[in-house]
Amino acid sequence: MTTIHTRREQTVDKPIAYLRDQNSSHLDWLIELCRIPSVSTKSEHAGDVRRSVEWTLEKCRAAGLQAEIHETGGHPLVYAEWCQAGPDKPTYLAYGHVDVQPTGDLSLWDADPFEPTVRDEWLVARGAADDKGQVLLYIRAAQAWLQSEGRLPINLKLLIEAEEEIGSPNLEPFIRKHADLLACDGVLISDTGLARDGQPAITRGTRGMVYKEVFLKGPSHDLHSGQFGGAVVNPATALAEMIAGLHDADGRVTIPGFYEAADVPTQQDREQIAALGITDADLAANVGMKQLAEGEGGYTPHEMRSVRPVLDVNGITAGFQGEGANTIIPARASAKISMRLVPGQDGPAMSAAFDERIRQLCPPQLEMKIETHGSAANAYVTPADHPALLAATEALQAAFDQQPVYLREGGSLPILAMFREVLKAECILLGFASPTCNAHGPNERVRLPDLDRGAETVTRLLGLLGN
Amino acid sequence: MTTIHTRREQTVDKPIAYLRDQNSSHLDWLIELCRIPSVSTKSEHAGDVRRSVEWTLEKCRAAGLQAEIHETGGHPLVYAEWCQAGPDKPTYLAYGHVDVQPTGDLSLWDADPFEPTVRDEWLVARGAADDKGQVLLYIRAAQAWLQSEGRLPINLKLLIEAEEEIGSPNLEPFIRKHADLLACDGVLISDTGLARDGQPAITRGTRGMVYKEVFLKGPSHDLHSGQFGGAVVNPATALAEMIAGLHDADGRVTIPGFYEAADVPTQQDREQIAALGITDADLAANVGMKQLAEGEGGYTPHEMRSVRPVLDVNGITAGFQGEGANTIIPARASAKISMRLVPGQDGPAMSAAFDERIRQLCPPQLEMKIETHGSAANAYVTPADHPALLAATEALQAAFDQQPVYLREGGSLPILAMFREVLKAECILLGFASPTCNAHGPNERVRLPDLDRGAETVTRLLGLLGN
Repeated sequence: MTTIHTRREQTVDKPIAYLRDQNSSHLDWLIELCRIPSVSTKSEHAGDVRRSVEWTLEKCRAAGLQAEIHETGGHPLVYAEWCQAGPDKPTYLAYGHVDVQPTGDLSLWDADPFEPTVRDEWLVARGAADDKGQVLLYIRAAQAWLQSEGRLPINLKLLIEAEEEIGSPNLEPFIRKHADLLACDGVLISDTGLARDGQPAITRGTRGMVYKEVFLKGPSHDLHSGQFGGAVVNPATALAEMIAGLHDADGRVTIPGFYEAADVPTQQDREQIAALGITDADLAANVGMKQLAEGEGGYTPHEMRSVRPVLDVNGITAGFQGEGANTIIPARASAKISMRLVPGQDGPAMSAAFDERIRQLCPPQLEMKIETHGSAANAYVTPADHPALLAATEALQAAFDQQPVYLREGGSLPILAMFREVLKAECILLGFASPTCNAHGPNERVRLPDLDRGAETVTRLLGLLGN
Repeated sequence: MTTIHTRREQTVDKPIAYLRDQNSSHLDWLIELCRIPSVSTKSEHAGDVRRSVEWTLEKCRAAGLQAEIHETGGHPLVYAEWCQAGPDKPTYLAYGHVDVQPTGDLSLWDADPFEPTVRDEWLVARGAADDKGQVLLYIRAAQAWLQSEGRLPINLKLLIEAEEEIGSPNLEPFIRKHADLLACDGVLISDTGLARDGQPAITRGTRGMVYKEVFLKGPSHDLHSGQFGGAVVNPATALAEMIAGLHDADGRVTIPGFYEAADVPTQQDREQIAALGITDADLAANVGMKQLAEGEGGYTPHEMRSVRPVLDVNGITAGFQGEGANTIIPARASAKISMRLVPGQDGPAMSAAFDERIRQLCPPQLEMKIETHGSAANAYVTPADHPALLAATEALQAAFDQQPVYLREGGSLPILAMFREVLKAECILLGFASPTCNAHGPNERVRLPDLDRGAETVTRLLGLLGN
C-alpha cells in the first residue's frame, strides 16, 4: 500500500504544482461566473443563464478540453471531454450546474448577490457554493493535468447543465438521447458540503424530493371581510387548515403510505450520524434558534434532517400583504409545499399520494389546482464498495490531511437515481461547501481554501482512478 | 300624515330641483375626488390623503358651509357647519371619510383604480362607493338647500375624516376634545349599502372588529429545506397550524369566551333577515361561488355574515412567493387576522383573548410578535324608535319610491359605539352602495342614479328633521 501510495504521489506532483500556481486566477474565474445572474427559476433571466453556459464552454476549452454547447428544450448545457487515455483506463463523468436559486429578499443580503465580495477567506455571492465554485473544480483539475502533463490519467467527460435549480427537466431526455456519448464507470459530483469546516466528507446518500404548488380559488374577487365574513369559505383560512392537515398532532405526515415504504435507518446509519458529533446545540446555533423541532418523535433532529422523510412549506401567498390592515376575504391563496424522500419511497407514488391527500383536505366550496415543479426525485445511496468511493476517500484524506466522513444529506440531487438508471453508473459525491454556506438563502458564501483543497482533491482523484 | 307630508313636499321642492340640476357637475366632483389616491393605510400616500382633505374643504365652502381643516396626530380632517337654524331646531352631525383602502393586486382591475371610469350607470374607482361617493351626498344636500333657499332646515355639522380605513386612530381623541363643537341630536352616516339594487335600506346594526397581525420568527435566515427540513420548526407550517387552531372541527372559533358574551340573535332579528329574501343562491352568485360556508352550524350564511361573530384570515405572507420552486424553510411568516364582533362582545376583551389563544398555539421554538391594527371596535345597533331613524325611513321612501328595509350589516364602523359614548348621540346609517359595489376589492364601483337618489334622500331628510 505504501509503495502504491508513493507512486501515485509522484505522478500527481506536477498537476498539483500547476494547480496551486493558478489558485488566484481561478478565483477570478469564479468571480466572473458569479457575476452572471443565472437564475433558472425566473424566465427573465434566461439570457443570463445562457451567458453562464457560454462562459463555461470557453473555460472548458481554455483548460484543454473539447467542449460544445447543446441546446435542450430549455436552458442549454455544456458537454466537454478528453477521452484519449485509452480503453484500458476508466471513464468518469463529472456533473455540475451553473444555474442558481433566486436571491429572495434582497434586504437580507449585505451586498449585491451578483457582485461577488471577498471577505476574509470567503467569497459571498449567489451560487458561490451551489454550485459554481464546485463545478469549476473539475475544469481546474483537468486544466492542471492537461497543461502540466499534456494528458489526463483517465477518460474524463464533463456535463454541466443550467436547470438544476428547476429540477433538471431537460437533463434526463438529454442523457437518454446521448447515453453512448455519456457512457462511464461512475459519475463524480461536487454539489454537497463538508461535514464541518476542515472536515472533508463524502455524501453517500441524498433525500429525494417532490415539490408541489397548491392553488385555491374561492370567490371570483377579493371580498369585504365584514360584508361576507362567515358566509364564504375563506381560501386563506382553508389553505392554512389544509396545510395543518398534512401533519398529525404528533408531527407525523398524514399522507397515506408516506412512512410505510420509507427505509427505516439502520443501527449503523444512526451510529454513523451520531459519530459525526454534531450536537443539537451546534445545529440550533447554526440556524439561530434556541430549540430544534421535535419532528415525528423517536429520531434526533440530525436524523430527521438526513435519513427521515419530511414535508415542509416553502412559501404561502394569500390576500393582503402590504402595510397595515386590508379587510378582505382573499379570492385566492397558494402554497409551495415540498417533501423530502428517503430510500424506499417512490417519488411519483409520493407525488400522487400528496395530490390525493390534499384533495381530501380541500373544502368542497373551493376550486383547487395542483402544480408539480420539476420531476419527482427518488433518494439515492452510493454502494459502500464502489472503487471511486474508495479513491475519493483517499484523495480527500491527502488534500485535507484529514480522514473524510460519510454523510447522509437531507437535500436532494434529483439526478442521482436517474444516472443510476439511465447510465447504469453510480454517483460519488465529494462536497466542499461549508455547513454555514447558506445555499439558497441570503449571503450565500464559499470558503476559498476549501475550494483550493477541493481542486487538489479532484486532481488527485483523477490520478488515483487512472492507476 | 297626508297633510304633513304635503307640507314637507312643498318645502323641499326648490332644493330638490336645484339638486337635480347639479347631478352632472356633482359627478365631476366625485371623479375629481376619486382621482386622488388617498390610501390611508400606506404611508407613502400621506400627501394624497391630505390633498383629498383639502379638496373636501374647498367643496364644503363652495356649498356655503363654514369649513376648516383640523390637524390630528395623523391625517387631517375637515369640520364644516351651518348652525343658523336657531336653538329650536335640532342639530345633526354628518360623518364620513375620504380615505380609501389599498388597491390590492392591480392586475385584477380592468382600469387604473385612480382613473375613474364611467361604464353604463356605474362609476368604477377605488373609493367610489366607500366612501367618497356617499360622503359627498351631505355636501350636495347642504349646497342644494343653501343655494336654493339660503338656509338649512336644521343645524348641520359635517365631520369628514381621512383615517377610517386604518381604524380612525385620531377621531376619538378629536371628538373628545371638541365634544362641545360636535354636540348633536344624532349622527347621520352614509357608508353602507342598499339591500339590493333599487331597494333602499337603513343599516340598524354593524359588527365590531379587532384586526391583528401575527409575526413569527424561526431561524435567523431562510434555510435550505433539504439540509434542515425535519430539524427546524418551519414558521410557515407553524403559522398554518396556528391559524387552523383558531377554529375547531365544527367551524367554531376556539378563542375562549368568544361566543359566551355574544348576543344570540332574537327570533325577530332572524325573521327580519329572512324577510330580506336574500337566498343562499343569490348570495353565492354575488361572490362567484357555487356553495357557501357552513360556518359554526345552526345559522344561515346570511345570519353568519351579519349577526354572528366570525374570524377571518385577511392575508398570509411566508417564504418564497415568486415563480417556480425555491426550496427554503422561511425565516419568517406572518398573517393578518380579523374578528368581526356582535353586540355583547367587548372589543378590547376579545383582542386580549385572541392574543392569549394565539400564544397558546405558538410552538415554543418560534418567536412571536402580535400587532393590533386600529383599535378594537364594538358592534352597534340603532334604537328602533329614534326620530331620525323614522325620518330617514320616510326620506328614503320618497326618494326611491320604495319602502326601505332594516339591515344588520356584517362590516364594521368602529366609530358608532364611540359616537354613542362620547357625544351621547345615536347613529343613523343610510347607505347607497350596491351589494355588488366590491368595496375593498378590485373594480370598486358605485351606481350613479343611486347616488343621485341618495343626495335627494339627504336633502329630504334635512327637511323632515327641521319640521
